[in-house]
Amino acid sequence: MTDPVLKHALDHQPQLIEALKTLVACPSVGADPAMSQGMEDARQIVEGRLDAMEFQRLQRLTPADGTGQPAIYGERMDAPGKPTMLVYAHYDVQPPDPLEKWDTPPFEPVERDGRLFGRGISDDKGPMMIALETLAAFVAVEGKLPINVKLLIEGEEETGSPSLPGILETHRELLDADAVLSADGARWRPDLVALNVGSRGNAGFEIRVQTASQDLHSGRYGGIVANPLHVLSGLISSLHDDTGHIAAPVFYEGVAEPTNAERAEIAEIPYDEESSFEVIDAKPHGETGYSTLERLWMRPTVDVNGMWGGYTGAGSKTVIPNEAFAKLTMRLVPGQDPETAKQAVIQHLKSQLPDYASMDVYGDRGQGGAYAVPEDHPLLQAAVSALEQTTGQTPLKVRIGASLPLTEIVSRILGLDTVMFSFALSDENFHAPNEFFRLSSITDGLAAWVQIMRQIEAIDRQAFSAFRRT
Amino acid sequence: MTDPVLKHALDHQPQLIEALKTLVACPSVGADPAMSQGMEDARQIVEGRLDAMEFQRLQRLTPADGTGQPAIYGERMDAPGKPTMLVYAHYDVQPPDPLEKWDTPPFEPVERDGRLFGRGISDDKGPMMIALETLAAFVAVEGKLPINVKLLIEGEEETGSPSLPGILETHRELLDADAVLSADGARWRPDLVALNVGSRGNAGFEIRVQTASQDLHSGRYGGIVANPLHVLSGLISSLHDDTGHIAAPVFYEGVAEPTNAERAEIAEIPYDEESSFEVIDAKPHGETGYSTLERLWMRPTVDVNGMWGGYTGAGSKTVIPNEAFAKLTMRLVPGQDPETAKQAVIQHLKSQLPDYASMDVYGDRGQGGAYAVPEDHPLLQAAVSALEQTTGQTPLKVRIGASLPLTEIVSRILGLDTVMFSFALSDENFHAPNEFFRLSSITDGLAAWVQIMRQIEAIDRQAFSAFRRT
Repeated sequence: MTDPVLKHALDHQPQLIEALKTLVACPSVGADPAMSQGMEDARQIVEGRLDAMEFQRLQRLTPADGTGQPAIYGERMDAPGKPTMLVYAHYDVQPPDPLEKWDTPPFEPVERDGRLFGRGISDDKGPMMIALETLAAFVAVEGKLPINVKLLIEGEEETGSPSLPGILETHRELLDADAVLSADGARWRPDLVALNVGSRGNAGFEIRVQTASQDLHSGRYGGIVANPLHVLSGLISSLHDDTGHIAAPVFYEGVAEPTNAERAEIAEIPYDEESSFEVIDAKPHGETGYSTLERLWMRPTVDVNGMWGGYTGAGSKTVIPNEAFAKLTMRLVPGQDPETAKQAVIQHLKSQLPDYASMDVYGDRGQGGAYAVPEDHPLLQAAVSALEQTTGQTPLKVRIGASLPLTEIVSRILGLDTVMFSFALSDENFHAPNEFFRLSSITDGLAAWVQIMRQIEAIDRQAFSAFRRT
Repeated sequence: MTDPVLKHALDHQPQLIEALKTLVACPSVGADPAMSQGMEDARQIVEGRLDAMEFQRLQRLTPADGTGQPAIYGERMDAPGKPTMLVYAHYDVQPPDPLEKWDTPPFEPVERDGRLFGRGISDDKGPMMIALETLAAFVAVEGKLPINVKLLIEGEEETGSPSLPGILETHRELLDADAVLSADGARWRPDLVALNVGSRGNAGFEIRVQTASQDLHSGRYGGIVANPLHVLSGLISSLHDDTGHIAAPVFYEGVAEPTNAERAEIAEIPYDEESSFEVIDAKPHGETGYSTLERLWMRPTVDVNGMWGGYTGAGSKTVIPNEAFAKLTMRLVPGQDPETAKQAVIQHLKSQLPDYASMDVYGDRGQGGAYAVPEDHPLLQAAVSALEQTTGQTPLKVRIGASLPLTEIVSRILGLDTVMFSFALSDENFHAPNEFFRLSSITDGLAAWVQIMRQIEAIDRQAFSAFRRT
């Protein structure tokens, strides 16, 4: 027998799709000041829907200094004594460039072959609508929510969430909850029922190596001065030893080796390594002693993202440049402190620098730690149960090699754990032309969201206290 | 008692300076098609002067296919049984850019503080006029030259002499001589009487290292694929061992270690290493076991002139690029075959390439061997004597670390040795704004050129045969 709330939600899918199209038609590109009206239109649509659902304390949140794109807040505290979830989504989208690569205009959503196309439809407007319409169905059918819900709908996710820490700090009490349930963060693969339980952190910086005050002619100076491109190559080469291990022991401070259980779990995940690498015409390569998924999910990295120096135009120029540059970023795993890890790499480079060269370190990038939701966290268990009941399969626990700033920021500032419960799929071209969202994901998502609300309702609120870090 | 020819030449310095200014006023920039009239004007001025001096067989020389900027040829075979010199100079000049850095317009020559300013005045119009007016003085005073002279005045020196090999091959008989006396090629330092007896050769190529078919996101691929910037850094680092020696034994094939005599000669050259490096804010660095001048003159090099890959714009981009590039050039010393040396470096790079990366080698640069005039060559001895008699000092024998294509090309094609007998000085901003030529160099140059003609007249022509290679 179908849950009456789910029946209501499924019956109203056409309305959901229409509302989603209206929202996607707003060009809410936060990175582009020329699209500020699109941002405002999107905010008003979301606020209108929350108002209609009788959410309380509707307001726009900014850091104390009032800057940045405001986040939308609203709450329904319908269930005294029951858990309170901070439900997260975002209304801003990526820029649509390159426009010429879209088959249909990015802000004119259309349906084709069971898919809806448009910028932001998978990241994160479609998944957000699933969460909102699930809540609306509860209100419509039962007159209230089975748990307490605080909605936080951010406007700066695609520009790196610069205001989010300030918003959380400034509105700490308002946003207090037992855990965070995110409608953002993609599912890994269409063929797999999976839950994302961890992400890597990141940090980065830029270096400039200098060997002279000016570019020099290789005829007049070749063989008698150092070449900064050679020096920089030496520094970069020294970062990894022959096994692909990073040659700065302090970098690994706090990194736990994968346990046998974790390795076994990862080994069981169906993963066609050969075809994954065939697509990009590359060969697996990395730290000796780890499988590809272990490397991607459990091991930290240092990569040069860009490097340059000297003459890079057409033809030849017999110059010995006086400086050379590299941009480096790291991917970090749980246990690593971003600042410690970054300084370890910087100190290593300094230790390798020959005395005939100097090095500047600058261009500090925003950095954040890795995040992993505790295995036995009650919200994670609720998510597992919800997926088991709606798909008939036990979800695999997967991680991502990329970074999810949200999880790390709410963990650090609010002391809360986050479960990513998005119904986007990672092949849906978010951040690329022809972004789309599967219609089938709406059905799947509504079922799972109704079910996770029921699961959370059943959790004894006290179960969360062991995990709260404030 | 002053040589009457020299007296005549010195008396006519004002006319020489006027003629030089007229020549410098022609913008003979061979690299710029818009300045072809300047090239033609310069040719006509030079041809007019040779005609007035009653040079014979006046003609313009091109390769067999008639392409390129013609060289000007004329001869006076006044001295049967005496040596025949091929006297070299060039009428083309470097582009004047950046124009805004000139204190006075580059093609409006002016005199200031004992210096004449203008594009090409030091390289090579001033030195050429010294040679021509020396010959003119002989004709005016003695009615003929004391030796046989074939003049070859090139129009493509500043664009790499692409037609010169073809001109020499096509007009081999016309250009046949006992040796080449060049009015091009700067003196090292104003404070030193020196003769340049050798130059390094060069060769170069470009490489592309590839690890995947497309740029990859460092979150999704960091730690599981190779980074081509790391691979390229490893390749570049592998080029030199810890002593600065190039790690490709075949590269050194044919390279002779400096003899004790050569080392002693070099050690005697006054050279203020500290201040030379202070000027460029660099530290001496190079192959262990050699002094700076030995490194610069006697040792071959490999340098990366440019290197790039990945994101090089402002800020950060978490990309793992799929390809990385480097431009490399070599400086070669006598005994090295450019092709062998180049292939040695390429083979070394290939041997170091890991199996998860591929490498393309392309962008072959024009290459040429090193050149050294034999210690006991009669023309070198004549030049030494001429400088001894006009300066009262024994000239130091120096080399340059750069390449002089002329010397290598005439050696290879005509089998002749060249002595560089220019009176430009290396600080006179050739190839830079505010190029100038010292008025004092005209006096010094006329004296030395009159004297070297006398010295050559005294050489038994047979003395050259041992050195001719055809």
